[in-house]
Amino acid sequence: MRVQATATVETPAKAGSTTTEPEVLQAINAIRFLSIDGVNKANSGHPGLPMGCAPMGYLLYNEFMTHNPEDPFFFNRDRFVLSAGHGSMLQYSLLHLCGYDSVQIDDLKQFRQFGSKTPGHPENFETAGVEVTTGPLGQGIANAVGLAAAEAHLAARFNKPDAKIVDHYTYCILGDGCNMEGISNEAGSMAGHWGLGKLIALYDDNRISIDGHTEISFTEDVAARFEALGWHVQHVKDGNTDLKSIREAIEAAKAVTDKPSFIKVSTLIGYGSPNLADTHDVHGAALGAKETEATRKNLKWEYGEFEVPAPVYDLFGAAKKRGQAAQAAWNDALASYAKQYPEEHEQFTNLISGKLPDGWESVLPTPTPEDKGKATRLHSQDNLNALAGVLDGFWGGSADLAPSNMTLMKAFGDFQKNQYQERNLRFGVREHGMGAICNGIALHNPGLIPYCATFFIFTDYMRSAIRMSALSEAGVIYVMTHDSIGLGEDGPTHQPIEHLASFRAMPNIIMGRPGDGVETAAAYEMAIKNAKGMNPEGRVRPSVLAFSRQAMPNLPGTSREGAAKGGYIVHGGDAKPDVIIMGTGSELSLAVEAAKELEAAGKKARVVSMLAWEVFDEQDEAYRNSVLPPDVTARVSVEAGSTFGWSKYVGTAGKAIGVDHFGASAPAPILYKKYGITKDAVVEAAQSML
Amino acid sequence: MRVQATATVETPAKAGSTTTEPEVLQAINAIRFLSIDGVNKANSGHPGLPMGCAPMGYLLYNEFMTHNPEDPFFFNRDRFVLSAGHGSMLQYSLLHLCGYDSVQIDDLKQFRQFGSKTPGHPENFETAGVEVTTGPLGQGIANAVGLAAAEAHLAARFNKPDAKIVDHYTYCILGDGCNMEGISNEAGSMAGHWGLGKLIALYDDNRISIDGHTEISFTEDVAARFEALGWHVQHVKDGNTDLKSIREAIEAAKAVTDKPSFIKVSTLIGYGSPNLADTHDVHGAALGAKETEATRKNLKWEYGEFEVPAPVYDLFGAAKKRGQAAQAAWNDALASYAKQYPEEHEQFTNLISGKLPDGWESVLPTPTPEDKGKATRLHSQDNLNALAGVLDGFWGGSADLAPSNMTLMKAFGDFQKNQYQERNLRFGVREHGMGAICNGIALHNPGLIPYCATFFIFTDYMRSAIRMSALSEAGVIYVMTHDSIGLGEDGPTHQPIEHLASFRAMPNIIMGRPGDGVETAAAYEMAIKNAKGMNPEGRVRPSVLAFSRQAMPNLPGTSREGAAKGGYIVHGGDAKPDVIIMGTGSELSLAVEAAKELEAAGKKARVVSMLAWEVFDEQDEAYRNSVLPPDVTARVSVEAGSTFGWSKYVGTAGKAIGVDHFGASAPAPILYKKYGITKDAVVEAAQSML
Repeated sequence: MRVQATATVETPAKAGSTTTEPEVLQAINAIRFLSIDGVNKANSGHPGLPMGCAPMGYLLYNEFMTHNPEDPFFFNRDRFVLSAGHGSMLQYSLLHLCGYDSVQIDDLKQFRQFGSKTPGHPENFETAGVEVTTGPLGQGIANAVGLAAAEAHLAARFNKPDAKIVDHYTYCILGDGCNMEGISNEAGSMAGHWGLGKLIALYDDNRISIDGHTEISFTEDVAARFEALGWHVQHVKDGNTDLKSIREAIEAAKAVTDKPSFIKVSTLIGYGSPNLADTHDVHGAALGAKETEATRKNLKWEYGEFEVPAPVYDLFGAAKKRGQAAQAAWNDALASYAKQYPEEHEQFTNLISGKLPDGWESVLPTPTPEDKGKATRLHSQDNLNALAGVLDGFWGGSADLAPSNMTLMKAFGDFQKNQYQERNLRFGVREHGMGAICNGIALHNPGLIPYCATFFIFTDYMRSAIRMSALSEAGVIYVMTHDSIGLGEDGPTHQPIEHLASFRAMPNIIMGRPGDGVETAAAYEMAIKNAKGMNPEGRVRPSVLAFSRQAMPNLPGTSREGAAKGGYIVHGGDAKPDVIIMGTGSELSLAVEAAKELEAAGKKARVVSMLAWEVFDEQDEAYRNSVLPPDVTARVSVEAGSTFGWSKYVGTAGKAIGVDHFGASAPAPILYKKYGITKDAVVEAAQSML
Repeated sequence: MRVQATATVETPAKAGSTTTEPEVLQAINAIRFLSIDGVNKANSGHPGLPMGCAPMGYLLYNEFMTHNPEDPFFFNRDRFVLSAGHGSMLQYSLLHLCGYDSVQIDDLKQFRQFGSKTPGHPENFETAGVEVTTGPLGQGIANAVGLAAAEAHLAARFNKPDAKIVDHYTYCILGDGCNMEGISNEAGSMAGHWGLGKLIALYDDNRISIDGHTEISFTEDVAARFEALGWHVQHVKDGNTDLKSIREAIEAAKAVTDKPSFIKVSTLIGYGSPNLADTHDVHGAALGAKETEATRKNLKWEYGEFEVPAPVYDLFGAAKKRGQAAQAAWNDALASYAKQYPEEHEQFTNLISGKLPDGWESVLPTPTPEDKGKATRLHSQDNLNALAGVLDGFWGGSADLAPSNMTLMKAFGDFQKNQYQERNLRFGVREHGMGAICNGIALHNPGLIPYCATFFIFTDYMRSAIRMSALSEAGVIYVMTHDSIGLGEDGPTHQPIEHLASFRAMPNIIMGRPGDGVETAAAYEMAIKNAKGMNPEGRVRPSVLAFSRQAMPNLPGTSREGAAKGGYIVHGGDAKPDVIIMGTGSELSLAVEAAKELEAAGKKARVVSMLAWEVFDEQDEAYRNSVLPPDVTARVSVEAGSTFGWSKYVGTAGKAIGVDHFGASAPAPILYKKYGITKDAVVEAAQSML
């Protein structure tokens, strides 16, 4: 095989290529010094990246990007992601200089302080103008792929030959650290496969990371790798001063419409600092007064701390003017669209606003105990397909496990190059990239609800992306099948044990494990509502839904209303019980069987489904006590997973039945028996307390 | 930039290149049919890969690899890793045919059954001859990088110009799925950087994954990517029948000594099956009787189920003969080495046996309360450096956070190309690859104890690798600093909340969070001992050690003996307490302060350090009750992390003080105050119960 020498464009660092635009240079230095000053004042942060990336940052925000500082949420804006999130002062400085209300000069002075708009890393939920939350390296470039995929999808669905109402670029600055992370390769491979031509990534090639020069750990040819991934690749050799070449490279990137673009921009970290530039000392520590002064002299910057000369603000007015004009033009275009395509217009505006159609939840299937029991992954399939019919913004896919996860929407084809209007995403075996891409999709606009799927065990591969959903309020639905030792023969490498506990411990996320068809519908209703912020905190909350590989019956006692409370009585609610048996998912029916056996022996047994702990804990005390009466201390829980955390509900006197060791490769019924996840074990535990 | 057309070698699929070696062909078909039969009998598993990879599997096991079926643990054997672990029947068939005791014909019949030697995916702890545990895709190739790094390291330290006592290859078969996962790119980049010339990876390019043809999600140029990563790359176009080309490619790979080798071997999944080859239906399901019969006819295989003709066993005798001879020669070489280099010989044999020097634990530092308090990451640094002096097999490094994690061993340089004898590993920002590489190192031989480091939050990036350490009994020490909101300004993207809970729930791993210098030494002693299987189960157990960014005092009540029990009384052990305060890590001193305040108010308060829950839970009941008397129900826990799980110790009547939401960007003392992790809060909680 021969690596083709493809269209790699070189932009040489010419002698004397230094720009001759003094006003622009001054604006770029303003970015540098605001960043230096912010980090100095906090005595914490990363000045090196903003100093090196100020030129490309300036050009993006003030010359290339369509955005409106007066309306940070203007739908058709270009999206920008600082994947190298530690360089947050670059973005804050740019937002401030462009005139975003969210970042006043006083906000810059509050960098990294409690409650400020300028936290250590860019956080979309804190600062208008920040699209996604970055910091954990590589997440941002994968989010950018999601943002670009969302644009491609909506454009393909709604644009008309005479009306481009969805039409924006996604820009991303990423660093050496991002490029070392596997997630960036996953996302890069996906973007190349999809041919996302409006995604433009600028790689801050400064060759410095925390441990020192990248030569100690990172000597691959990054540009060649991205070529292999199917990207259009260019190299700007002098990103510090050669504005013309950066401009030309971005123009060239925009001209390539069938591939994402990767522009390697070689810079000096801490550019301008006479003693620290090109060292890792300037990466993550304040310059300090002395070196700041030296930098000031070196760059001929005559202004004080946090001082911005008026001409710089004037120059940055261009962004606002361009943004206002773009938004006005878009409003006009949308008005024409409304007239010419009223149906699509309504669909489009509903979709991007996030408005759910009335009665959407009524389409969810409602199996009865007479219906043959089946695996919750199959119930999940029914629910996904029902939602696909009513929620226009609902789309997603699996990390190469669609036939096992049961996640294909039958009414749609695959989202692919030249068929971006389709709604089944084929992520390949790239769980981490998948999650982060879905975060980008979810945060593109309030109307998109992405779901993604793999085996529950492989949340281990994508845990950071899932946590970023929870933190950044990205309403992603994680469809996680094969949720216990019940998957059987694939063995301990594929059997989740501690995973339910590990997500129950995570803030702002729902960990749902429904026990039959009715509860599966309830779990989807819960997930969709939380993806829209419909919960006591009014905060968008993603969901992890765990589904079984194996079949289970539809239970007489389950209900949508009950399940919506996170925990409720499924059996034996009439009288005060002698014993309470709690279960979730595939063990719920086992709990009911045990209860019946106890009843046959004359005991009053109650079964409580605890399908979503965090939701149950949000109910008022009276309700919680009605489900779990405090004076009933004979309690047993049964769940085919770690017992860790169950003590909260079973109490000191109770017993938790579960699996606190790794599983094994064997048919599921054998494992349940060997590990004591049985009706008999539950009955025995209950009787020991009575 | 121009991608160089480097030394990519093409091995064309010649017309008529089908081998003319009927005996070899028969042996290859034996592999195919044992695999088919095993999967059929289990009615579960993956026949497709073994059928396609049988030729390369045969050549590796019977012509190329040095291994001794009579001694699977022969030190100088070539290592083999089936990264595409779902194709486990390939490896089991090969182990059986080569004559490994561990895999008898009856074991093949027990494929995927409880307690068998032939679980669904290869598991080193079940089956002699399996080096590492694979299945979660991409782990294996990263393990292989670790195995090759271990070889390079030991070779550089112990070989002499006249005595090569460490000298083996590491082979790996990986698939499309492995190559889609980000971890394989991380590990590949690392291997290319290190120039591991004795690592040879064969890529089963069958273009089929579970969702169908790889064209739906995976169209990058994998070979070009590996070239970009610095590998020597070849392509065998017909891996199904062109044995000559596979042989030549492996020979060429061995001849390249300064780069790892990547051989893309194009195969047909399910080769030989007339109706299912080249489809995803043959990937993960049994062929069934009818298609098996058709395949039998197609491949002219005249033998029954699980029947192996005698000439096939005879042919495979070559492996054993070669292995016995190699081991005998190695024994001779080692004997000569012992005479010529007695000192190195002793060091070498101690190292590879895993024997710890007497009194090693006495070198660990023992700070006193008079010593100035400092961050536990700094105590960790002291411990690491102390261990470096006494444990020859102790080595490791950080994912580009060495100056923050404090993990450099000062006595050594960096492990790099041409200086493999050094012991500081520079992993770059590749947490997942790092963990899996360390698993490979740990499993190379019982004497290597790798450690690796990053911020605690980034365990989210490497959780699968950490779980694989726990499952596969790889005694890795995970040094995780910046272990709470106490890291301050970097904000919620960098502040672990649920992470302690999430590892406490994981089986077979120690989650340690020491509270001062003495406890840090105890935690390292515990980690090393468990890495050697010194625990009640006699099973190797990895450790996650959480260390603080911020300083804390050395406490008068801490002790190595107490801490070794996982939980113990730090303060107030003399009398039966009115209240018990539990804490870990940076909150332990806060617990002591609160206890003193309660004592000043006339209450008897006990402080218990719970630095390693799983170890405390292993103590006998009498001890546990002596620490936490059951009738003392006034209990408070304090820990700057999720309270999830603490109910187990504080009980129904107790209170858990912690952080059950995401953190924020601010100086640490501000966060502690805002979130109520204070002495006052502990005192108040205690008083509310008294």
